[in-house]
Amino acid sequence: MEHTVKAFDEDITRLRGLIAEMGGLAELGISEALSALVSGDEELARRVVARDKKLDALEAEVDALAVRVLALRAPMADDLREIVAALKISGVVERIGDYAKNIAKRIGKIDGRAKFEPLTLLPAMGEIAAEMVHDVLTAFAARDPVLALEVIERDEKVDAFYDSIFRNLVSHMVENPSTISTAAQLLFVARNIERIGDHATNVAEMVHYSATGTYPREIER
Amino acid sequence: MEHTVKAFDEDITRLRGLIAEMGGLAELGISEALSALVSGDEELARRVVARDKKLDALEAEVDALAVRVLALRAPMADDLREIVAALKISGVVERIGDYAKNIAKRIGKIDGRAKFEPLTLLPAMGEIAAEMVHDVLTAFAARDPVLALEVIERDEKVDAFYDSIFRNLVSHMVENPSTISTAAQLLFVARNIERIGDHATNVAEMVHYSATGTYPREIER
Repeated sequence: MEHTVKAFDEDITRLRGLIAEMGGLAELGISEALSALVSGDEELARRVVARDKKLDALEAEVDALAVRVLALRAPMADDLREIVAALKISGVVERIGDYAKNIAKRIGKIDGRAKFEPLTLLPAMGEIAAEMVHDVLTAFAARDPVLALEVIERDEKVDAFYDSIFRNLVSHMVENPSTISTAAQLLFVARNIERIGDHATNVAEMVHYSATGTYPREIER
Repeated sequence: MEHTVKAFDEDITRLRGLIAEMGGLAELGISEALSALVSGDEELARRVVARDKKLDALEAEVDALAVRVLALRAPMADDLREIVAALKISGVVERIGDYAKNIAKRIGKIDGRAKFEPLTLLPAMGEIAAEMVHDVLTAFAARDPVLALEVIERDEKVDAFYDSIFRNLVSHMVENPSTISTAAQLLFVARNIERIGDHATNVAEMVHYSATGTYPREIER
């Protein structure tokens, strides 16, 4: 029995490690995609796109390990909830990586960078979203429902940035019709970041559930 | 033993039923959101938004049942893979519902509907995406990897629609700066449908995995 418990703890530790690694890559993807956006560095953008495959592979590894743990150890109660949370969270973090990749893919389509005010707002917005991703995975590793709630609250800031950038870009389009195509790309970047915030919030709800057995009160998104 | 197997089969049947119900609601959400878009029916749009809560509740129900099955029946091999697939798929279908809700929420912000060509293209695009959602859940229920592959292939059509609508809307914006704000909303609608196709493709990959133990060859998205 002692042996089994130890083996289970090792599996859980490995599972947490894999998810932390996924989170680190997703965070890096977000911040590098936004630096590439501001600097126009297409080489960096390509690296972000290429790195996304690593996230896909890690998700498959988390799923395979989780399935193995479920099959071999038949965990109960809190342990079972944690494995289930890991399975769901790996899927969401992989999708957060997709958004970073989507941002990186737009960089080749963006012209006349320096003229857009949102180019200073988007990195600030992205930083909040990347921190949400970071903190929610810290909350998962520490089973910390209070930190999970803090992440959920921060999503409002991301939404406020989004609204402001949206209005700014639409005005910009009206005044400079020749830049509409680029402005549309920046709109999608803003939207991608906004979705990253939503997904981090989603994960925070799962972490709260995994740590306490209850979902946080419904938050309107 | 016979009793346990029977109880397990009942649980799996219920799990499939819940996921089929989620899929049906998501499909309905997509098609109603797009009818509301074309007709400008804000009451219908509000119903789509309200119905999304039902999807959230069903996801929680799938998760709770899957956890119970894992805890009580400790399924192995194919059965375990199916439960894990159900856990991941419920999360994705819930997000597909979010996209339908997002489309519905934009309807109040859209003016001068009749003048936009994409208003005839978006419902056609949405229909393909809704069918992908329908068929991939049929594939899940039937453990049919061939149908899952067909769904994956259909995503190219959705992407082609998206590219065409994007170009159309940007040209429209350039020619009619006064309608930029509405055109931007339609761009997001197109993007939401495109993401629904991506998510259906994601589910199709999980169904393929659940049915065969292997992922389909990597498809560049």
